[in-house]
Amino acid sequence: MKIWQLQARPEAGSSILLASGEAPSAPLGPLDVAVRIHAVSLNYRDLLVARSARATALVPLSDGAGEVIEVGDAVTHLQRGDRVMANFFPHWRDGELSAYDHTTALGGGASDGMLREEVVLPAHAWVKVPRGWSFEEAAALPCAGLTAWQALFEVTTTGPGQTVLLLGTGGVSIFALQLALRAGAHVVITTQSPSKVERLQAFGAGVTVIETASTAGKFAEAVRAATGGRGVDTVVDVAGGATLNETLGALRFGGTAALVGVLSGFQGEIALGQILQKRLAIRGVYVGSVAMFERYVRALEASDERPMIDRVFTASASGSSTEDVAEAYAHLASGQHFGKVVLRLT
Amino acid sequence: MKIWQLQARPEAGSSILLASGEAPSAPLGPLDVAVRIHAVSLNYRDLLVARSARATALVPLSDGAGEVIEVGDAVTHLQRGDRVMANFFPHWRDGELSAYDHTTALGGGASDGMLREEVVLPAHAWVKVPRGWSFEEAAALPCAGLTAWQALFEVTTTGPGQTVLLLGTGGVSIFALQLALRAGAHVVITTQSPSKVERLQAFGAGVTVIETASTAGKFAEAVRAATGGRGVDTVVDVAGGATLNETLGALRFGGTAALVGVLSGFQGEIALGQILQKRLAIRGVYVGSVAMFERYVRALEASDERPMIDRVFTASASGSSTEDVAEAYAHLASGQHFGKVVLRLT
Amino acid sequence: MKIWQLQARPEAGSSILLASGEAPSAPLGPLDVAVRIHAVSLNYRDLLVARSARATALVPLSDGAGEVIEVGDAVTHLQRGDRVMANFFPHWRDGELSAYDHTTALGGGASDGMLREEVVLPAHAWVKVPRGWSFEEAAALPCAGLTAWQALFEVTTTGPGQTVLLLGTGGVSIFALQLALRAGAHVVITTQSPSKVERLQAFGAGVTVIETASTAGKFAEAVRAATGGRGVDTVVDVAGGATLNETLGALRFGGTAALVGVLSGFQGEIALGQILQKRLAIRGVYVGSVAMFERYVRALEASDERPMIDRVFTASASGSSTEDVAEAYAHLASGQHFGKVVLRLT
Amino acid sequence: MKIWQLQARPEAGSSILLASGEAPSAPLGPLDVAVRIHAVSLNYRDLLVARSARATALVPLSDGAGEVIEVGDAVTHLQRGDRVMANFFPHWRDGELSAYDHTTALGGGASDGMLREEVVLPAHAWVKVPRGWSFEEAAALPCAGLTAWQALFEVTTTGPGQTVLLLGTGGVSIFALQLALRAGAHVVITTQSPSKVERLQAFGAGVTVIETASTAGKFAEAVRAATGGRGVDTVVDVAGGATLNETLGALRFGGTAALVGVLSGFQGEIALGQILQKRLAIRGVYVGSVAMFERYVRALEASDERPMIDRVFTASASGSSTEDVAEAYAHLASGQHFGKVVLRLT
Repeated sequence: MKIWQLQARPEAGSSILLASGEAPSAPLGPLDVAVRIHAVSLNYRDLLVARSARATALVPLSDGAGEVIEVGDAVTHLQRGDRVMANFFPHWRDGELSAYDHTTALGGGASDGMLREEVVLPAHAWVKVPRGWSFEEAAALPCAGLTAWQALFEVTTTGPGQTVLLLGTGGVSIFALQLALRAGAHVVITTQSPSKVERLQAFGAGVTVIETASTAGKFAEAVRAATGGRGVDTVVDVAGGATLNETLGALRFGGTAALVGVLSGFQGEIALGQILQKRLAIRGVYVGSVAMFERYVRALEASDERPMIDRVFTASASGSSTEDVAEAYAHLASGQHFGKVVLRLT
Repeated sequence: MKIWQLQARPEAGSSILLASGEAPSAPLGPLDVAVRIHAVSLNYRDLLVARSARATALVPLSDGAGEVIEVGDAVTHLQRGDRVMANFFPHWRDGELSAYDHTTALGGGASDGMLREEVVLPAHAWVKVPRGWSFEEAAALPCAGLTAWQALFEVTTTGPGQTVLLLGTGGVSIFALQLALRAGAHVVITTQSPSKVERLQAFGAGVTVIETASTAGKFAEAVRAATGGRGVDTVVDVAGGATLNETLGALRFGGTAALVGVLSGFQGEIALGQILQKRLAIRGVYVGSVAMFERYVRALEASDERPMIDRVFTASASGSSTEDVAEAYAHLASGQHFGKVVLRLT
Repeated sequence: MKIWQLQARPEAGSSILLASGEAPSAPLGPLDVAVRIHAVSLNYRDLLVARSARATALVPLSDGAGEVIEVGDAVTHLQRGDRVMANFFPHWRDGELSAYDHTTALGGGASDGMLREEVVLPAHAWVKVPRGWSFEEAAALPCAGLTAWQALFEVTTTGPGQTVLLLGTGGVSIFALQLALRAGAHVVITTQSPSKVERLQAFGAGVTVIETASTAGKFAEAVRAATGGRGVDTVVDVAGGATLNETLGALRFGGTAALVGVLSGFQGEIALGQILQKRLAIRGVYVGSVAMFERYVRALEASDERPMIDRVFTASASGSSTEDVAEAYAHLASGQHFGKVVLRLT
Repeated sequence: MKIWQLQARPEAGSSILLASGEAPSAPLGPLDVAVRIHAVSLNYRDLLVARSARATALVPLSDGAGEVIEVGDAVTHLQRGDRVMANFFPHWRDGELSAYDHTTALGGGASDGMLREEVVLPAHAWVKVPRGWSFEEAAALPCAGLTAWQALFEVTTTGPGQTVLLLGTGGVSIFALQLALRAGAHVVITTQSPSKVERLQAFGAGVTVIETASTAGKFAEAVRAATGGRGVDTVVDVAGGATLNETLGALRFGGTAALVGVLSGFQGEIALGQILQKRLAIRGVYVGSVAMFERYVRALEASDERPMIDRVFTASASGSSTEDVAEAYAHLASGQHFGKVVLRLT
């Protein structure tokens, strides 16, 4: 089967380096399930991985969907032909994350990911594609969608009467926008791009858009003003370091910042006084467990909503070209997307 | 001012007995607020009170809305002209209910209720009418609306991916129907009345209607079938005794029955095995605190939704007639209503 | 290996019927672990199983501890020589119980239990014996201990300032007594046996003993009196049907009845009014998951406390006698025990 | 009556400047309660207030206990002679803190505190002294004790099987030490002072002491080692900025840092990656509400435990001296205390 692998770390500012090759199918244990991958999607985390030194020869990407082609003897709840997605953490089934679950995330430093024709994982790592969804739609879900779900429904609750603040229009934020509106909450969302304001306002009266001057822009005051001075109940914070103080300043007394990403930096100089004085909570959110994914899929099946896909690229499993994949990486890196960047494997 | 009072207990099956009279305005303490009542609403509980022996000479009804006409010297957050509703439990502000809070419920055995021209209560008992609502709409809220809110958002959480079972089309069930749909949940609702099926289906694809033969009808099996065998996450159980086993049978493993009423009886013969074996929860819900009401009002102000009012009667504050009020009681007792029965005081 | 099996249902009042025989060792799958059983313990549930028709030829008992004698090729976290206990529900790992987990409980209708020389179960079903414990002590834990743990720390929280009501001195109640005291809570405990009062009072000032006239005795009023009229925060209710109204009457506003057993009957005629009016919760508790068991073992290892073992019987794995086992069953059935009834296999 | 007031901000390193004077008793509203103060205690926060510019002419100190000398006409649950403590936030009764509750904290920038002969506050601000406690013991509780309580039992739960990390031996840490041990948890505690190691070890086998080189010392690795590599469940972090990364590094996956103080600085440079990757929570804790204080007092009354008082100073209400009070401030500022610094008013 064809696999794609990351090459030595790219020069600063240059594009991601990839190679492709042939690999034998992985052996199938009694509890394993082999899947032919039909679509994958890219996340900001995949850029970080690709730019880190340790990723050489790694098969990248955590998100993929496909069709079961073979199941081990002891597998009971899946069969050939089932349409499935892999969980970002294939070994985090339920309860609390462990160090082992964490280090075996797909397409991270230690475990190959989904950018290959076939993937073999234990049966418990696969979650069924929502009924009626295409592989492209399903491939968009695992990392960004489940992150949004965990932030809004596992570490906090979100519903009528609450206001959620979202930062920018990347994958997680757009999933969170859809979910928060469905849950009856009001959404305040920031964007630096005037061209996105209208698209966001098209989501209806439940959305308040705030334009910020720059990535590290101030937004706390504008958010408080947009909530009558009260502040928001929850922030899904994809930015981290540079703006965490703004995030905290935007919260109401007792509100929660679900910290899901560090787009603006891993380090943050935080004014701790407001955490105490407003009794704030910061909750670290890292994608999610298989059990969370299953709850999320149940929620998706009860609605007509589909992922906001910015663009679908196509990569060919025949030949040795990697340009099609590199193009998808470049599009994500450009930050011009509104929703997810997907890659169909043909 | 005119007041209405319950008379000696009515004969079985006969209509509620009322008298009217004049009473002086109550004295106003420094933390009190006096309100001219413009509308009240009736609840099933008001029928129970009217039929009990202890209610003689009681001013009935817990639900009313009006305009502030005078505030005590020490009152800060309300002023003349504010539009307000009284909380069912005027002294239950936050945290857990107490015996004192419980015995001082409005229009119950020990405290006069809202069916009078003016009501004086401590400032903390009044909650502002949602912006843009009429007094009739506001009067529909306190008992039934807040009960539905507490069941769905205070003792459980309700959101996308969950299914809520509602029993019949009384006030609480219709409020719960609106709230659960807004929160992104699926609703299964029972009705004995073929004529109501179509009205319920008009709420859209998020609602599954189940016809039951009688009040004490079996519905657990039909509900499980409607949820693919899984059972529902939450039941808002207004019925109590006669059907509690059906309620429990309709729940998924780990599901919750929010017990909010006992329309079918105060006593229940319950099969306890399923509580253990499915790890079920039963949670008693009794209207709600002022803090819960304020959260509920915030949720209402964030939407365009209004209470489902079945019919508005009118009672005159001049003259000694009580027929107009008796008519409203009789309509509620008939069980023909779909939503709330409201009474405008003119 | 020797196994013991239940025979046809005993006559009312007569002793449990057992047979013994030889069985081949079960085959070992790649994720399985084989354990030589050194001790088992009996629970009230084992009497119910033995008296039910469906149990013919079943290997009974859910509780057992022993030593790993062989592990499958894919097993990583256990090895030969490890000392382990089986979880009551071998397939309930974490999260919510499922129908499948439920029907595969050890020694119930559908799955053989621990009363045999060797048991093979998937690796995930085994939990390590607390450091320094004997097999007899460890065998006492799984069903009764974990039930008490789930009631006090998984479906409620228990700590300083709280009061827990326990009913009688069976296995679950004595485990709960020890745990609640360790957590800094006050305990009120009922007993029908004057001879047990002193033993209970020996636990110290943190325990209030209430003598009741009979199994179906009234105790709510005495419990309220013992708590200054307030009522208790939590009841670990092992009795169910006949006394559930007393249990509810003993609770404070907002308190929780953890329903863990039905010693007094599966059916209960319950006065529902108090559930609403005091905002009570009833939570069904059924032993627990592997993850709960692991948390419980961690708590046990941090203390010097050991299970309260009433008596240790001995059964021989050689020969065909079943009398030694029948004697243990008879002792449990007598209700004279204070703590657990254990059986050593030699 | 005599009052003490803070003077203009002291020079860096010099002692706190105080003046005393006479003031008329405050007027008594219908819901107010007047209390003669018999003892007060000092907290680190009182040093911060005394050193800030805004505190000129402020009556300092949040913590005090005394005897009711007069109650307003409408007060029902307190009477002359009752022994009471004021809540740090006199207007935060229950539920979430508000901006108003926050700005009216006793002895902060905007509201006079307890260092005066008599204090008048609304009845709801006073909590009864635990039965059998002296005024000195009671005065030690409000700020530090309730902070520890909220951290361990309101924003987290603490019990058997859990490990709590405490930083140093100030007031909050010693209250938390006592509470965590009573709740059956294990405690790991740091100290910079070799002389305190033995005193801490005297608390028994449930306490592990870790010596750190300096205030900003590294301790995460030692804490992880002391917990078998797992990390602690909860940190009660009194230090804030300089050591927050160590705090986070000491936590297990999914653990919680209750941020209760900022002894080491208001600003913190935090490595955010570990918050995400270990799914950590940071929870801001700010003393507590009246309802929390009442739960705490109930817990205290159920045990024999008393506050760890380092030293009791005495201040005379007659004459104009302020030296006795200044001495207590100086002792607190020295950091030599182990437990609370109390001041008796005579």
